[in-house]
Amino acid sequence: MEVYVPFDATAPKRRLESVLSSDERQAFARTMLRDVLDAITGAGLSPTVLSTGPVAVDVPVTIDERDLTPAVNDRLASASGVVAVVMADLPLVTPATVERLVDTPGDVVLVPGLGGGTNAVVARDPTFRVDYHGGSIRDHRAIARRQDLTVGTVDSYRLSVDVDEPPDLVEVLLHTDGHSAEWLSDHGFRVEPDTAGRVAVTRGPQG
Amino acid sequence: MEVYVPFDATAPKRRLESVLSSDERQAFARTMLRDVLDAITGAGLSPTVLSTGPVAVDVPVTIDERDLTPAVNDRLASASGVVAVVMADLPLVTPATVERLVDTPGDVVLVPGLGGGTNAVVARDPTFRVDYHGGSIRDHRAIARRQDLTVGTVDSYRLSVDVDEPPDLVEVLLHTDGHSAEWLSDHGFRVEPDTAGRVAVTRGPQG
Repeated sequence: MEVYVPFDATAPKRRLESVLSSDERQAFARTMLRDVLDAITGAGLSPTVLSTGPVAVDVPVTIDERDLTPAVNDRLASASGVVAVVMADLPLVTPATVERLVDTPGDVVLVPGLGGGTNAVVARDPTFRVDYHGGSIRDHRAIARRQDLTVGTVDSYRLSVDVDEPPDLVEVLLHTDGHSAEWLSDHGFRVEPDTAGRVAVTRGPQG
Repeated sequence: MEVYVPFDATAPKRRLESVLSSDERQAFARTMLRDVLDAITGAGLSPTVLSTGPVAVDVPVTIDERDLTPAVNDRLASASGVVAVVMADLPLVTPATVERLVDTPGDVVLVPGLGGGTNAVVARDPTFRVDYHGGSIRDHRAIARRQDLTVGTVDSYRLSVDVDEPPDLVEVLLHTDGHSAEWLSDHGFRVEPDTAGRVAVTRGPQG
């Protein structure tokens, strides 16, 4: 199985700009990527990073400067077997989650992200193509339906929580102990003192 | 197994006040409750609503005007066997999700909600007590640890997405077709036209 992790090496995680500087967003995005790669390799698979530019990781990197959709579709078109695509901003993912993903039946397996995105795809049919954007999960379902492909899904909080916006950071601190949680902690992020509703993060001195 | 669904019959879902009137919040909360009860009965279980006041449903209702924590702990203290507690604002839950919940091993099973809450509990040990608040999942884990209880969890997007805030509504429209999705649609809510990031809902004329 070919497993691709798309990565924006140039200006990642713009929606975290209220809490992280540009350099910090670069560093944090790479840290989340590391957690995702660890989970995939921990599941016995060999990921390739599909990156818009150079990135230092311990796995192969394919550079493709195009947008996400054509870059992924090129991989789908040239693959000789099953292709999985797992987003790089899923630091809650564990090896067990990755195993659930690749063990789920279906010509296509689609895992939604919060807010209608598509966080993971497993394409077992060579004709499936992606169309990534904000509400892509509906379109991916429609594409599969039009082609009479069976669609599997994975009901997983760990796969569906992508880290895009400041409130997402608390999920990393509460439910993981990987590199991303350590990075946030080292950069002063803490779960805020208790509130009546959802808790968020606060940022204090680094340490 | 005793299955309780706590319900605030008086002023539910205050954090939806920017998009729903007080009467609408009452109606929508009851609609979500109905979806949760359907999922539980669909899994072959018999839920009881643990409500702060009268509510018209097709299952037994226990009225307890106290706060959530003492009301639930009273049920835990008086139970003769396994007790499950499932929140009323989880309209994405299906019978299959409920089955996963009650089939998960552990002296206590804890399912987090977005933002650190606790969306579902299965207590198989008679000594376990709850302490609900914004970041309760950490405290529930700590309570279990202090009592040397084994803790199971369920990695489920459908159980972890509680509907508290306006951005949550899009998850209901995108991933369910139950009473809650129908209610939102009937009250003019639509998935907004596509954006680069997460999609949200817009509200137009009812119909």
